[in-house]
Amino acid sequence: MAGAPLSADQIESHNAARLEALQDEYDSLGRALARRGVAIDAIKARVGAFSVATPTWGSGRGGTRFAKFPIPGEPTNIHEKLEDCAVVQQLGRATPRVSPHFPWDHVSDYKALREEAAELGLGFDAVNSNTFQDQPGQPHSYRNGSLSATDAGVRAQAVEHNIDCIRIGEELGSKALTVWVGDGTNFPGQQDLGASLDRYLEAAAEIYAALPGDWRMLLEHKMYEPAFYSTVISDWGSSILAAQQLGPKAKCLVDLGHHAPNVNIEQIVARLHRFGKLGGFHFNDSKYGDDDLDSGSINPHQLFLVFNELVEAELSPRDGFDPAYMIDQSHNVTDPIESMLSSAEAIVGAYAKALIVDREALHAAQAANDTMLAFQALRQAYRTDVTPILAMARMEAGGAAEPIFAYRDSGWRERKAQERRPVGLGAGIV
Amino acid sequence: MAGAPLSADQIESHNAARLEALQDEYDSLGRALARRGVAIDAIKARVGAFSVATPTWGSGRGGTRFAKFPIPGEPTNIHEKLEDCAVVQQLGRATPRVSPHFPWDHVSDYKALREEAAELGLGFDAVNSNTFQDQPGQPHSYRNGSLSATDAGVRAQAVEHNIDCIRIGEELGSKALTVWVGDGTNFPGQQDLGASLDRYLEAAAEIYAALPGDWRMLLEHKMYEPAFYSTVISDWGSSILAAQQLGPKAKCLVDLGHHAPNVNIEQIVARLHRFGKLGGFHFNDSKYGDDDLDSGSINPHQLFLVFNELVEAELSPRDGFDPAYMIDQSHNVTDPIESMLSSAEAIVGAYAKALIVDREALHAAQAANDTMLAFQALRQAYRTDVTPILAMARMEAGGAAEPIFAYRDSGWRERKAQERRPVGLGAGIV
Amino acid sequence: MAGAPLSADQIESHNAARLEALQDEYDSLGRALARRGVAIDAIKARVGAFSVATPTWGSGRGGTRFAKFPIPGEPTNIHEKLEDCAVVQQLGRATPRVSPHFPWDHVSDYKALREEAAELGLGFDAVNSNTFQDQPGQPHSYRNGSLSATDAGVRAQAVEHNIDCIRIGEELGSKALTVWVGDGTNFPGQQDLGASLDRYLEAAAEIYAALPGDWRMLLEHKMYEPAFYSTVISDWGSSILAAQQLGPKAKCLVDLGHHAPNVNIEQIVARLHRFGKLGGFHFNDSKYGDDDLDSGSINPHQLFLVFNELVEAELSPRDGFDPAYMIDQSHNVTDPIESMLSSAEAIVGAYAKALIVDREALHAAQAANDTMLAFQALRQAYRTDVTPILAMARMEAGGAAEPIFAYRDSGWRERKAQERRPVGLGAGIV
Amino acid sequence: MAGAPLSADQIESHNAARLEALQDEYDSLGRALARRGVAIDAIKARVGAFSVATPTWGSGRGGTRFAKFPIPGEPTNIHEKLEDCAVVQQLGRATPRVSPHFPWDHVSDYKALREEAAELGLGFDAVNSNTFQDQPGQPHSYRNGSLSATDAGVRAQAVEHNIDCIRIGEELGSKALTVWVGDGTNFPGQQDLGASLDRYLEAAAEIYAALPGDWRMLLEHKMYEPAFYSTVISDWGSSILAAQQLGPKAKCLVDLGHHAPNVNIEQIVARLHRFGKLGGFHFNDSKYGDDDLDSGSINPHQLFLVFNELVEAELSPRDGFDPAYMIDQSHNVTDPIESMLSSAEAIVGAYAKALIVDREALHAAQAANDTMLAFQALRQAYRTDVTPILAMARMEAGGAAEPIFAYRDSGWRERKAQERRPVGLGAGIV
Repeated sequence: MAGAPLSADQIESHNAARLEALQDEYDSLGRALARRGVAIDAIKARVGAFSVATPTWGSGRGGTRFAKFPIPGEPTNIHEKLEDCAVVQQLGRATPRVSPHFPWDHVSDYKALREEAAELGLGFDAVNSNTFQDQPGQPHSYRNGSLSATDAGVRAQAVEHNIDCIRIGEELGSKALTVWVGDGTNFPGQQDLGASLDRYLEAAAEIYAALPGDWRMLLEHKMYEPAFYSTVISDWGSSILAAQQLGPKAKCLVDLGHHAPNVNIEQIVARLHRFGKLGGFHFNDSKYGDDDLDSGSINPHQLFLVFNELVEAELSPRDGFDPAYMIDQSHNVTDPIESMLSSAEAIVGAYAKALIVDREALHAAQAANDTMLAFQALRQAYRTDVTPILAMARMEAGGAAEPIFAYRDSGWRERKAQERRPVGLGAGIV
Repeated sequence: MAGAPLSADQIESHNAARLEALQDEYDSLGRALARRGVAIDAIKARVGAFSVATPTWGSGRGGTRFAKFPIPGEPTNIHEKLEDCAVVQQLGRATPRVSPHFPWDHVSDYKALREEAAELGLGFDAVNSNTFQDQPGQPHSYRNGSLSATDAGVRAQAVEHNIDCIRIGEELGSKALTVWVGDGTNFPGQQDLGASLDRYLEAAAEIYAALPGDWRMLLEHKMYEPAFYSTVISDWGSSILAAQQLGPKAKCLVDLGHHAPNVNIEQIVARLHRFGKLGGFHFNDSKYGDDDLDSGSINPHQLFLVFNELVEAELSPRDGFDPAYMIDQSHNVTDPIESMLSSAEAIVGAYAKALIVDREALHAAQAANDTMLAFQALRQAYRTDVTPILAMARMEAGGAAEPIFAYRDSGWRERKAQERRPVGLGAGIV
Repeated sequence: MAGAPLSADQIESHNAARLEALQDEYDSLGRALARRGVAIDAIKARVGAFSVATPTWGSGRGGTRFAKFPIPGEPTNIHEKLEDCAVVQQLGRATPRVSPHFPWDHVSDYKALREEAAELGLGFDAVNSNTFQDQPGQPHSYRNGSLSATDAGVRAQAVEHNIDCIRIGEELGSKALTVWVGDGTNFPGQQDLGASLDRYLEAAAEIYAALPGDWRMLLEHKMYEPAFYSTVISDWGSSILAAQQLGPKAKCLVDLGHHAPNVNIEQIVARLHRFGKLGGFHFNDSKYGDDDLDSGSINPHQLFLVFNELVEAELSPRDGFDPAYMIDQSHNVTDPIESMLSSAEAIVGAYAKALIVDREALHAAQAANDTMLAFQALRQAYRTDVTPILAMARMEAGGAAEPIFAYRDSGWRERKAQERRPVGLGAGIV
Repeated sequence: MAGAPLSADQIESHNAARLEALQDEYDSLGRALARRGVAIDAIKARVGAFSVATPTWGSGRGGTRFAKFPIPGEPTNIHEKLEDCAVVQQLGRATPRVSPHFPWDHVSDYKALREEAAELGLGFDAVNSNTFQDQPGQPHSYRNGSLSATDAGVRAQAVEHNIDCIRIGEELGSKALTVWVGDGTNFPGQQDLGASLDRYLEAAAEIYAALPGDWRMLLEHKMYEPAFYSTVISDWGSSILAAQQLGPKAKCLVDLGHHAPNVNIEQIVARLHRFGKLGGFHFNDSKYGDDDLDSGSINPHQLFLVFNELVEAELSPRDGFDPAYMIDQSHNVTDPIESMLSSAEAIVGAYAKALIVDREALHAAQAANDTMLAFQALRQAYRTDVTPILAMARMEAGGAAEPIFAYRDSGWRERKAQERRPVGLGAGIV
């Protein structure tokens, strides 16, 4: 990678200093896994082949309605965002694609942007449209909804924007459009709950009709926020019924933070797969609502259980299995590069743990209703420390053994704080 | 009604003492409603035509896993339960049908039971099967599930029991089978989440195949309990996908207490109707989980909003509108007859309030995105005290103006405490 | 009120057109209440004496981290906000005081501001400090907390700002400081959970020490947001322990949207009163999190049950009963004046319903463990439509029978849309 | 242990077959920990010194209100329960004490029972009283509450029972009384929320007065169930205020399943410690309500974070640190012995992970507001597989390397299924 943002030499010397210890830990784990009948190198190979996209907007600090606290050196345009995503990919080796968002990432020449990304070692993943905010000069406001708005002009504008996103995506080499709308209500009675879904479906069908043949349309549901009484696509039930009505290219996207409290998300994953509509994931973690915290930081076991379903789905593909993976987090209190490195590791780690589950034992215990052994089959894998596998896979791909420390040593953010224009205070909205 | 359990004279004198006050309140409300363009007599007529079934088991005290505290005079068999349900119907005039549960209500002669009920002024509503408990002498245990069990013998037994219930229901004059299974898991890994649904669907299809042509099969979902990690039909999404797969006679039943925290239940009602699968309701209220409290006792506004959707659905029937209504509560701390009287009034009251919504104003405000007036259209109806309409409708049908007081004055429970055999302590399970 | 913003004549003619109908409804309700032993005029008098503050910031549109959609004619400074609050008070007669927020409402001359408000018929309620946002030019950032920050300079700045707020409040005639801090963490381990409370308590004690003798310090807890893993004063338990440690002038403030799902808020109110620490309320409603919806719009029964506890507390004052009441809502989709009018009516209505509870019957039923009659005592009051009492009380005080319609007829917002400078788009934060 | 239930030889040969692999894994982990500055033998020693009590009732199958499915060989009296708890202790070496429950474990000679337990290698932990169920022949019913009942006779009976429990506990060598009451309501208005707490506190004070000087009274709060509207000690706030009022021997007990959804339990632990009232734990796990699932089976990260607070508390004891630990689970679908073995391992494992946290790094990162490194300090410890430490500690204490497999090989349950009388069907309560 000619255009890689960080010095490969520095990464190499970072790794050299850690190799001996890592080799010992990798070999030790290898022996332990071999005793369970698992070949560590095969796991390492699958881990190395796994990837998850980063969102361009995730490279900037996020905030709440109360405030946003920027950091020096934050990116303020798509070019700087690509650079930061390239740092994440160079060190972590698990995030070779970025997912853009329009109009936030608008440029005049998308071919050039695609080349710029490729130079940095990046490709483009699903394109995200935005009909939850008004843009200056926009003819219609989304204040009363977008795809489900009562006003036909508003709906047409929202449809057209989504089709624009598809066209941009084609130039960027993307193969999917992710559609999330904030449409909904804050008061009982504000809208007719049936008619608003009718309008949504009609408008979504117009977008669907504009999809290229090899594209997918990913419907992202969310329980609430920005709407606080009802939301038009609020749950996986609404999402899958909409996807069924739209057609085979429409699939459901699961954001881990968009569910009701206590819901069994891994079962939702299994259900979507069972009915042929599992389209992809937005990874993050949360404790209360759509907190958009770092993946696996709050409930890493849930992340593992989700990947356990994904590995099962891969083994029983039914109508196909090819979900799109993306990190979708709000980095309010950390350096976004560090959070994305840490989160990618958490996600890949959950996948690695799911891979080393003794599935023969698991399935035998399930068939025999031996609840304790079935649980122990999962638990044995979950408690295994797969860090050495991830680190070895990263190193072999040119990444860093300990990405956060390598990043800190690189001085990237301090350098950018000198070069990039400062971000103003986010005063909040309240 | 020759066989009505209470003295009609006593009810009449109860009413006579209240008539003057009631007439004043009814007339006053009539003038107020007339000013809003609503004819009170038309509302009274629709209220009088509305009904909701009572469950036979609801006439006994319920309990928790910790304890059950019986009351003197509780019914202990189907005959006594019918008597108590007849008291509820005689006084409240809104509950002309009972919903039986098997094997709890097993008798040797169902024709005779149907006549016995008719004599008491009662008919039979949906039949409920039970595959969540083992019965003495039963060949297979449901400890590892029923319709979704890994063991084919267990599934066959559960299917057969459901078909038995249909046959009994035919003798009783019922037209629907409600299927709720507690099948699920307490541990991650305990069962394959996809395969257990496959097994459920296969078994449910065998039951479906045995349905008479004019019957419906009502699928009741529940988030959790008795299973505490996953449940095979845990949410409306799973329920509707199962109902779609089974066929047009399969519909979804909404129990108000079977959802995740914070979920917008009235929107689920709207969604089920939108997709042609709204089958019926189990009414109750709850604050925490499936608390099975008296309908409307905790969140009466939610009950109103549900009925608001039902009235909308009736106006826009799409693929048809004919839901089955039942009270499903656990009367742990009250006399069950009083709770059913109070709950029926709360349910009918919510319906009455939904009927007096100024729908023209509501729809106009919705079309104009006038959020405040749309909300006020609902709120004006909600805050109206419809008690006089309900009381007048009851009185005109031979019921009591104030059913709970009429019931207390009747001395029914004290009399039954003398006649019926006592119920033992429920020591709990823990 | 020489300086009242709307024409009194117009209000009078609005009322004149509604008087006959209202009188009929008031008299009818009076007869019904008299039959229950309740004198309607006494209730009307107590309703007329009740008041709740409006927050200055509530007169502008709110938003979410995703977007804010302004309306033409929104106020953009404290003077315009006071005008709008005066409209609410003139029409609704229940909101004679405003609660300011600093630095948002900063002016150079607070004496003049107090006179300006008085001229509009308004006084000042509790003063609110803001240490959850950074202000331009501020020496220290609150990015890592304020009163609980590890940095002593940050804490000192936050303490000083709160003391400034007290000084301003003294000039404005306020008697209370409300302290809400967003301090907390997004990651396990981010802060020491014990030490951060120690620091909070130490800093809060410095503010407490600066309170005038007749002031109160109201501690407002919140479960989460802006912090999504832990919050330093996250629940009523933390709040009351902090208030105990600070001293007798420290009390707890209950915001209805700041609790965990399913929590029994009315019991929290009873607990705070029982232990002498009930300081006040921020009224709003919510379905999911801190949604800041209009009071009573989602769960009006809960609002009634809260007021039921308040009426009980007034009857059993124990160590005193004098809570501060404020509306605290985010008006994202309505005209804020209309929402405050509607919300004030909902709050006063809940109070009126609590006043007409037959407490003798309630207490007798409680003493006899007659659960059904105890519940019915509350339910009878709750289902009573107290609208005529509220309207009559408003009219007699110079307000409008139907405030929202009177407001619309006044053309206030359209006029202000001409006069006031437009608000820019709120692009959201994400 | 002369009286140990299983053959020591069998355990030894079980271990011998696993020693080589275990030694390799222990040594490998030892090298990895040494590189982090952690001495594995020191951790092993602390792990070996840690213990948690088992509840006598936990050795039988639990159930729900719907059903209980017994297993052959379940214990049906305190003597058999002690035997099963002794099996858990013999194999797992972490559960040397049992916690009895009265009247469930009533015998005529408690001195003999204490000797019987000692013979099995067991002592007695906190005594649990039961005032949530009625016992045959009991003068007063707890149907309307116990310590908070309106009836003085009921309260006196409940107080007396608790004092009886203390007296029994003294004979058994216990030093604590755990008080959990189910008192509460199912309807708004059912009880006066303030007065019922007054009564609770008055009755609890009578129990407190009967405590021996070196005993503690542990107050256990619970959000809901069996009461579904309000519960007298529903949250940690109520619990700590009650404990403050009772006196220094009263402490708060945290059951992990007794909280509102989403609540940060580890922060509650930190708060209770901060205010000197952390008394102990009932360990279990849950996804929805008080599911009483196996410890760490659903959210093992939360269990780790709780132990992280406990290790911090031990380092900063403030007013003392000496919590009582007990497993409190409902084993509905597993062999209770296996669940207790698995749960004890999960609990000890969480403790071990908390012990290996690099606290110097953690505290330095906290002081510097280096959020990412603070989080990583916890995460590094959490992802470490401490299984070899636990296994080695167990083996050295005479336990089994893999307790569940050793238990299965022992044939204990099959043998007991021959010897013990069968348990009848639990038909549920509903």
